[in-house]
Amino acid sequence: MPTPIPFHFDFSSPYGYLGSEKIEALATRHGRTVEWHPMLLGIVFKTTGSQPLTSVPIKGDYAKRDMERSARFHGVAFRLPSKFPIATQAPARIVLWQREHDAAGVGRLVHALYRAYFVHDRDIGDPEIAADVAGEAGLDRAAARAAVDDPVVKDALRREVEAAIAKGVFGSPFVFVDGEPFWGIDHFDQVDRWLAQGGF
Amino acid sequence: MPTPIPFHFDFSSPYGYLGSEKIEALATRHGRTVEWHPMLLGIVFKTTGSQPLTSVPIKGDYAKRDMERSARFHGVAFRLPSKFPIATQAPARIVLWQREHDAAGVGRLVHALYRAYFVHDRDIGDPEIAADVAGEAGLDRAAARAAVDDPVVKDALRREVEAAIAKGVFGSPFVFVDGEPFWGIDHFDQVDRWLAQGGF
Repeated sequence: MPTPIPFHFDFSSPYGYLGSEKIEALATRHGRTVEWHPMLLGIVFKTTGSQPLTSVPIKGDYAKRDMERSARFHGVAFRLPSKFPIATQAPARIVLWQREHDAAGVGRLVHALYRAYFVHDRDIGDPEIAADVAGEAGLDRAAARAAVDDPVVKDALRREVEAAIAKGVFGSPFVFVDGEPFWGIDHFDQVDRWLAQGGF
Repeated sequence: MPTPIPFHFDFSSPYGYLGSEKIEALATRHGRTVEWHPMLLGIVFKTTGSQPLTSVPIKGDYAKRDMERSARFHGVAFRLPSKFPIATQAPARIVLWQREHDAAGVGRLVHALYRAYFVHDRDIGDPEIAADVAGEAGLDRAAARAAVDDPVVKDALRREVEAAIAKGVFGSPFVFVDGEPFWGIDHFDQVDRWLAQGGF
């Protein structure tokens, strides 16, 4: 079995969303699967001293333009949500809870949540809305809603974020190919060549 | 005459160096020329609250690995200099001075200075070494050395940096295609398509 590709992302990250729409086709082309790892970038930003791109002077205006342009470049539907950025504990916890029950279905859930936010402008940071989206994606809505407040799931997310930071994840999207780290959808061309050649 | 492509760069920027090795072929493919604009990123970083990539916790280790990997990916010789980052007033001033005298020769000078630093580990932040490299590239060494301390050239660099910031330049490399801004060698695929299609 070839090693799966861990895909680390924050539900509030536009480039994470764009990456989520491209990573499966990229992995499949090389006989790989994707492992979905929700991340809380706010915690990393405290360590790296970063802040959300759109809040940075000068860079912020460019970032908004680039997000929309990059979406068109990659052929992905995108609208910068009216509330941005958001706290993403709720959707991240639902994803972790789902991963325990149906690992194969996680990709579909991630897409549903990401598209709800970045295409349909629904505030998935709100536990009720995140649970609605999970329900529409075929999950048990009540169970998904309960997972958001479940101490076991909360703890699982805490450990998931710690593990990601320990691996060196500091942005979104962030993937590993056989241990080699790549940050950003901009590096998917390097990911592609790394997968094809086993390094370069 | 098609509009030239302004290429903004800091001589201390590894990705600026990689971009400088690729931009002319890219521009030429679309019948364009390159306009070289040296930049002092330190001044921008004060505004954006950024710092050199390699100094950022967690991100710094990734950055070093990525610089070397990106150089291999793009087929460009690269070695992280033993002194990094450096202040780049000296090479930037020599480039501005040269641009006044021989605009067509500026590309050759930029390449000579960048390669001296990122291939041959010569500290081009030192005015004597920057002048040496300029001399080896065919310029009048003494005149190049004098330019570094020339108040007129100093003032020209100050205005150059202010003008770049006013245009929204906050990183290196940074290019414009008919006014559309692109940051990073990672976006050269978007630059390529923008040039081919006149936007997307």
